[in-house]
Amino acid sequence: MTFSRPFAIALLTTTCIFAGAVQADDPPSKGEQALKYRKSLYQVMAWNFGPMGAMAQGKVPYDAAEFAKRADRVALIAPMLSEGFPAETRNLPHSELKPAMWANRADFDAKMKNLVDRSATLATVAKTGDFAQSKAAFFDTADTCKACHDKYKNE
Amino acid sequence: MTFSRPFAIALLTTTCIFAGAVQADDPPSKGEQALKYRKSLYQVMAWNFGPMGAMAQGKVPYDAAEFAKRADRVALIAPMLSEGFPAETRNLPHSELKPAMWANRADFDAKMKNLVDRSATLATVAKTGDFAQSKAAFFDTADTCKACHDKYKNE
Repeated sequence: MTFSRPFAIALLTTTCIFAGAVQADDPPSKGEQALKYRKSLYQVMAWNFGPMGAMAQGKVPYDAAEFAKRADRVALIAPMLSEGFPAETRNLPHSELKPAMWANRADFDAKMKNLVDRSATLATVAKTGDFAQSKAAFFDTADTCKACHDKYKNE
Repeated sequence: MTFSRPFAIALLTTTCIFAGAVQADDPPSKGEQALKYRKSLYQVMAWNFGPMGAMAQGKVPYDAAEFAKRADRVALIAPMLSEGFPAETRNLPHSELKPAMWANRADFDAKMKNLVDRSATLATVAKTGDFAQSKAAFFDTADTCKACHDKYKNE
């Protein structure tokens, strides 16, 4: 290890975390970083959710390996989401979260847990390669997204 | 399953994927979506990399469980990155990728594989709770980030 290594790491993490905060005079607040983090997680979720949705809706042929890969990734990302909603993100601009969430945190957390649980089931079921079961598990997972969005997301 | 369910899913994946493309007249291209996807993945990487870096540099006390959790997440995200660099992302604005990558794809892919391999080792080592070994594995992983950034990322 050289002297410059810790410095390089500090620079690396700083530039990565602050990437996107172009033209900001001050570094982003903890809340702003968390907001960016959760938006990133939702992007990753959506990217991997999409191909499963296309298969489940019959728009593209079922590919068991591809479906299982996407299901695994959604199941990996889902448990990371809750960290993206600390109190510091309250009242931030550029958030699609309805303020009602803060008065209903237990309900929100329960809905988040439904997503975690059902996406874990989806990942397990997807590995069987059974399309009908995989499709059902996918819609069960998608229902948990919708239940939360309907109540707590400004579309 | 109701009639509206597939429609709801389509809406869900569409709004999620296109979130952030505010004021765009056309939906984002495949390349733009992939660029957004990889930027999101790097954000998720950085968020989870940061706490390990702080511990490795002695800025905060070593917390074995926290370190191991972050290491696991970095190891889960790393294999997703390569999908974010399809040919369609070539010449896109708002990319920090140096054009030199496209003429050196095999080298870039090898560097990406180093990240995947070393972050997998990091996750394994972190589970032992041995700080010295975890720190070394962390810096080994960080080196793979830096090796790629130095050559292919506009800072």
